[in-house]
Amino acid sequence: MSNQSIQPDAACCLVEPLVREPLDAPTAADMAARFKALADPVRLQLLSSVASHAGGEACVCDISAGVEVSQPTISHHLKVLRDAGLLTSQRRASWVYYAVVPEALNALSTLLSVHADAATAVEASA
Amino acid sequence: MSNQSIQPDAACCLVEPLVREPLDAPTAADMAARFKALADPVRLQLLSSVASHAGGEACVCDISAGVEVSQPTISHHLKVLRDAGLLTSQRRASWVYYAVVPEALNALSTLLSVHADAATAVEASA
Repeated sequence: MSNQSIQPDAACCLVEPLVREPLDAPTAADMAARFKALADPVRLQLLSSVASHAGGEACVCDISAGVEVSQPTISHHLKVLRDAGLLTSQRRASWVYYAVVPEALNALSTLLSVHADAATAVEASA
Repeated sequence: MSNQSIQPDAACCLVEPLVREPLDAPTAADMAARFKALADPVRLQLLSSVASHAGGEACVCDISAGVEVSQPTISHHLKVLRDAGLLTSQRRASWVYYAVVPEALNALSTLLSVHADAATAVEASA
């Protein structure tokens, strides 16, 4: 199970903010696997490198700028992000191109968002 | 370094979406440490249990409902979330109360948010 890829379109996009209701166990397991892929500084830098590229897509030859690790290490990290459903990859001629999966990132963003009214409620109860 | 707590107010709230610009190494390290705290299904369930409680705060006696792990394990997970700056705790009489740190959750949410215009750009380039 732990070596299986998370499908980009599997349960990635129907997530309620966790301030709204407690997470059920299957959703928690799915989201935790995605957060695990984000729990590494180099992977976060690589993901941001792809995400901030024009069109949210970048050639692997352009991704490593500013990240001081070897090419095999970069390939490993990109595979982890792809297996977590956060990136897709496509080979074109000699190069592999990586693109973000906006729905997957937005689902995680939604899960963690604390709306202004919730924040106000927290402050009001303090 | 790895055993030190992340300060709730340290660099938690000034984050740009990673679709906007590549992350620098110090911010990536800080954010990765917070995602690591979220990379466990039981911790996500406990965090959502606190966050979805009235006022974003809950007594430790109320948090464990629906989570089938021992009390010492729950305490350990809550400490990890607190050390990552995602929860605060306060003892009142016999019980410890945990509260979410809305700014910290919102910072992670902002980091991962893909705005509609960015998503459109991705689709347009596909």
